Amino acid sequence: MPVQERKDLLTYKGAGVDISAGNEAVRRIKRLVAGTRRPEQIGDIGGFAGLMGLPAGVGDPVLVACTDGVGTKLLVAIALDRHDTVGVDLVAMNVNDLLVTGASTLFVLDYIACDRVVPERIEALVSGIVDGCKQARCALLGGETAELPGLYARDHYDLAAFAVGVVERSKMLGPTRVKSGDVVLGLRSSGLHSNGYSLARKALLDPAHAGLAFADRLPGDPAGRSVGEALLAPTRIYEPAFAALRGLEHAPLHGAAHITGGGLLENPARALADDLALELDLSPLELPPVIAAIAAQGVGVRELLRTFNCGVGMLLYVDPAHVDVVRAALAAVGEEPYALGRVVARAAADAPQVRLAGASWMGGAVEVE
Amino acid sequence: MPVQERKDLLTYKGAGVDISAGNEAVRRIKRLVAGTRRPEQIGDIGGFAGLMGLPAGVGDPVLVACTDGVGTKLLVAIALDRHDTVGVDLVAMNVNDLLVTGASTLFVLDYIACDRVVPERIEALVSGIVDGCKQARCALLGGETAELPGLYARDHYDLAAFAVGVVERSKMLGPTRVKSGDVVLGLRSSGLHSNGYSLARKALLDPAHAGLAFADRLPGDPAGRSVGEALLAPTRIYEPAFAALRGLEHAPLHGAAHITGGGLLENPARALADDLALELDLSPLELPPVIAAIAAQGVGVRELLRTFNCGVGMLLYVDPAHVDVVRAALAAVGEEPYALGRVVARAAADAPQVRLAGASWMGGAVEVE
Repeated sequence: MPVQERKDLLTYKGAGVDISAGNEAVRRIKRLVAGTRRPEQIGDIGGFAGLMGLPAGVGDPVLVACTDGVGTKLLVAIALDRHDTVGVDLVAMNVNDLLVTGASTLFVLDYIACDRVVPERIEALVSGIVDGCKQARCALLGGETAELPGLYARDHYDLAAFAVGVVERSKMLGPTRVKSGDVVLGLRSSGLHSNGYSLARKALLDPAHAGLAFADRLPGDPAGRSVGEALLAPTRIYEPAFAALRGLEHAPLHGAAHITGGGLLENPARALADDLALELDLSPLELPPVIAAIAAQGVGVRELLRTFNCGVGMLLYVDPAHVDVVRAALAAVGEEPYALGRVVARAAADAPQVRLAGASWMGGAVEVE
Repeated sequence: MPVQERKDLLTYKGAGVDISAGNEAVRRIKRLVAGTRRPEQIGDIGGFAGLMGLPAGVGDPVLVACTDGVGTKLLVAIALDRHDTVGVDLVAMNVNDLLVTGASTLFVLDYIACDRVVPERIEALVSGIVDGCKQARCALLGGETAELPGLYARDHYDLAAFAVGVVERSKMLGPTRVKSGDVVLGLRSSGLHSNGYSLARKALLDPAHAGLAFADRLPGDPAGRSVGEALLAPTRIYEPAFAALRGLEHAPLHGAAHITGGGLLENPARALADDLALELDLSPLELPPVIAAIAAQGVGVRELLRTFNCGVGMLLYVDPAHVDVVRAALAAVGEEPYALGRVVARAAADAPQVRLAGASWMGGAVEVE
């Protein structure tokens, strides 16, 4: 083989990496991202890193940081070739983790990895991330789009994000603040959010179970959505709800638990000290249609509670003296929280820390160690 | 199919997600991660998020944040079944971007996504990340291990990380500080670092080019390493070098450029104002053996300069009045920087901003628009 021909072959593009497609994707992204800029943000240093000052008025700031992805919900987006909503999920999964500490959001960074850069698809993904950042009132401060031929299958991609917020040290929520007697309110979820998709897809799509197609109507859905639409419904972002509570007199919000992977079995106690427990009555919960359709395929109640949010995306632990004020503040931002129970003293150091009861679909009480 | 049997089938594990393997991986990781703890760190709130105070003595803090992955260097680690070094690369790619702003590192978060959780492999990956965090003097504040069956091929995985640092606003490096006359020093790379692996693998492994196997000796390597060893050499982390310069009188470091994707063509000007340019003489550079072996397969000089670091992982733009002090401080941490040229006034607004000359392997001068 003549040297000239081999030189021609050995380019980065020839090896599967298309820099010009990458540049085109960056051009499309820039315009979108500008819409999330915050006043604390500082002009970039050649894009090596994102720069952000701290918001005014925080005397003793504590930084709060999370990372998460969207999981196999991406396989639904890829199968449906619909890429403009999973970015909302990505931001939500991170921001909802951050909010439970009492932090306000500051910024998000995203990581998109794919087998090849299709500028239109990257633009759609980032438009969802930007949508999420706007809902979460944070800047999209930076990101990476990685073209990794050989690591991802054709037209597959993965998303990860990272969120940073800040909280005044004296205002941190959680185990030091939650007390016996606190009332538990539950903020509604919009569906599966971003957990349990491997099981959800198996239950709904596998011919050995429901055997539905994405385009089929979801059984029992009053909105008449297709299975694909219901599965892709974006995760709710609870920043507006938390923002409504941050300014209230007497700081009535003591703690919160994001109902993420591990569901209602593993998350509620994460905001409690070891000597407290939860008595939750799930009877007010309406199982979202997509979760009800999955349950109908024969998922055991413990598996259901551990895998899915069962209709509640966030638990709030609220000072019983100020529940009415909290309810009014939440109503002002469109939230109609469920009343789900209360925080109690734990019976013993080895007693279960969560007791769930009440929902007809549960078939009885469930205790959680 | 009887209902009981279907219930038994429809579990999260049956759908490909093994929570107990995940828990075992978490147990192994915790011990490793504890070794990176920083004094500013605050005990977690149920692990929903990582919490970190700011270091003392920063009056007007600016947060600096980056995200990056390791690219297709992972395919080398996967092929060699050697997973304990790519974590160093992951931290390095983020931290080196962060350092050029003048920031000190604070924390890193990692995202590991795989087709199935093999606890030993996750432990190896995290041990590399922890090694990198120790080199970079930052905490591993959190992370996510995502099991995504169907999105990754068998035994494949991807890594992403996010790094956050902090810089006193008045001490930020970059375009506002770099001046005509500044001396350009280059810190040595350890090999490919984490860029250009798609081209590197094609040049070295493809039967149409060098056709080597990972176990073959790398041609021309004085250290006698195998191709696999040379390809996996971890990226250098320049935090010790920057730390040595941070405390110097007269703040002689004005700016820096991480030689990452885009190589010596696209990165050096990123730390310059538009009215400045660089005259770089690359003749002192020794091409690392792995890059020389790739070049020998017939990669054009522009492609080489744009894809690989060509032996220099970081450029420093230094006050000419204090170069000796800088050299002495770098020598104290084991750095022997190359003298590569200087910052000059740009001839015209449309004149090239970088002029590279001198290396015998370049075959002449290269101008960059």
